[in-house]
Amino acid sequence: MDPDAVAKAFVEHYYTTFDSNRAGLANLYQESSMLTFEGQNTQGCQSIVAKLTSLPFQQCQHAITTVDCQPSGPAGGMIVFVSGNLQLTGEQHALKFSQMFHLMPTPQGSFYVLNDIFRLNYA
Amino acid sequence: MDPDAVAKAFVEHYYTTFDSNRAGLANLYQESSMLTFEGQNTQGCQSIVAKLTSLPFQQCQHAITTVDCQPSGPAGGMIVFVSGNLQLTGEQHALKFSQMFHLMPTPQGSFYVLNDIFRLNYA
Repeated sequence: MDPDAVAKAFVEHYYTTFDSNRAGLANLYQESSMLTFEGQNTQGCQSIVAKLTSLPFQQCQHAITTVDCQPSGPAGGMIVFVSGNLQLTGEQHALKFSQMFHLMPTPQGSFYVLNDIFRLNYA
Repeated sequence: MDPDAVAKAFVEHYYTTFDSNRAGLANLYQESSMLTFEGQNTQGCQSIVAKLTSLPFQQCQHAITTVDCQPSGPAGGMIVFVSGNLQLTGEQHALKFSQMFHLMPTPQGSFYVLNDIFRLNYA
């Protein structure tokens, strides 16, 4: 397994799903998952998806600038760190954002999101 | 232990040390530690400190805008996510940056940095 390839595939899948079918992100979170979105904490798959689907913008497009990844320890997890631009439909300027994911392996050989922290950078 | 208080204390200590005595950051890394600085990977305390002390700016000042933290799993680790401004001495404009740390507990009851990823946001 090439960690960079896994990270890039995850990032591609995550933001494509976010921009086209946000509720579909439920497949990536579990009950232990945590989201901190602009400083607001949410825990558990259902609460996280409720948060993400109720954000004050309905349509958006993420454009990724950088993806960095590192293994996170003996449990087989991976840190994925993303920077990019978030274009809200109808808005003139894109917003810069940074986001980190801590992915943990599932028994099925896939990954789920244990930690998710999102911040706008107010460029 | 209040995770938010630990995260804030770590962040205060880290950037104060970075801005005043960068080589002193050696106390925060171990042999398993990883740094990705603007996409460049370094591993191990000695290599990381060599990287940080050889950056093309000698004097700088970090100003922190946000600090988010989450527990990272059963091993007692913690994710710390920082955004802020980096002012290089002699430069007119500050640079925006984002940085994440994955802190792991030491047997002495302290923490070391297992994962460190830094990115400028080019505002």
